[in-house]
Amino acid sequence: MTLDPPSEGSLATLLCMSEPPEITLRPIGVVRNGEHDVALWDWSRVESRVELGAEFEDRLLGLADYSHVIVVGWMDQFPSEYLERARAYPAGDERLPLQGVLALRGGRPNPVSVTVCELRKVEGATLVVRGLDLVDGTPVIDVKPYIAHYDSVPKAKIPKWAGG
Amino acid sequence: MTLDPPSEGSLATLLCMSEPPEITLRPIGVVRNGEHDVALWDWSRVESRVELGAEFEDRLLGLADYSHVIVVGWMDQFPSEYLERARAYPAGDERLPLQGVLALRGGRPNPVSVTVCELRKVEGATLVVRGLDLVDGTPVIDVKPYIAHYDSVPKAKIPKWAGG
Repeated sequence: MTLDPPSEGSLATLLCMSEPPEITLRPIGVVRNGEHDVALWDWSRVESRVELGAEFEDRLLGLADYSHVIVVGWMDQFPSEYLERARAYPAGDERLPLQGVLALRGGRPNPVSVTVCELRKVEGATLVVRGLDLVDGTPVIDVKPYIAHYDSVPKAKIPKWAGG
Repeated sequence: MTLDPPSEGSLATLLCMSEPPEITLRPIGVVRNGEHDVALWDWSRVESRVELGAEFEDRLLGLADYSHVIVVGWMDQFPSEYLERARAYPAGDERLPLQGVLALRGGRPNPVSVTVCELRKVEGATLVVRGLDLVDGTPVIDVKPYIAHYDSVPKAKIPKWAGG
């Protein structure tokens, strides 16, 4: 099936379904760092343990050879009203331009987080990482090796208001 | 609740629950690019349309000011046996060292993809991107602005077998 661009319509229409399908997943781990302040500004020095279930230890073979990982979390601390917002001010600062929530990195329709972290150590089924911006207890749904060839774009442009 | 490191046990034990909770999400869009070959090696020049449901157009305000985005997809083309594998050879090449699936970027317990793409254009609720490595019809669960300050680590190390 190919649709002519640009298609317009609800997601259900785009997918030719009466309703978009639900996706079900299970966390594979949890963040432990003793940090409970979602408004913490600088996470760059926070050390966290990403504790995966023991059943996933086998799946980490080779990951310790990477210096950085991508941690995908499920930001379950957001109340549902927050996830339904269409627009918000960056960091709540009304002096900055209003943004669509998909143009920010916080609450969004599916509150999936993507964070690049330094991988300090792999101990059994636990990753010790630095710079993960997720509070203690956040479910983790995936970890991936960070591969600069694909993942690093040092000169990517950002808007002026954000320092670009 | 704080656990002493390193904790050992199934994820349910780590979360102090009889079973880890299920997370339910809905796609917000779909990939359209006419590409159906999951084994395609070089996606860097593939142009794709990420067609979001019209209900998400409002949420894109401001995204066009970024040159790159992170597209989070749900790789639903993998059969379930593939998702249950613990280890695999990189790109199926047995001359390379066996890896845990979480140390690769393909099939994994939760088949979430994370791809950094060039954002060419935002047309209504559709993003036109370049370099997205997902086949036509893949559900998209999130899009985010790419912010080099957080997301770019040009010198991240990778193993020798991967060219590091």
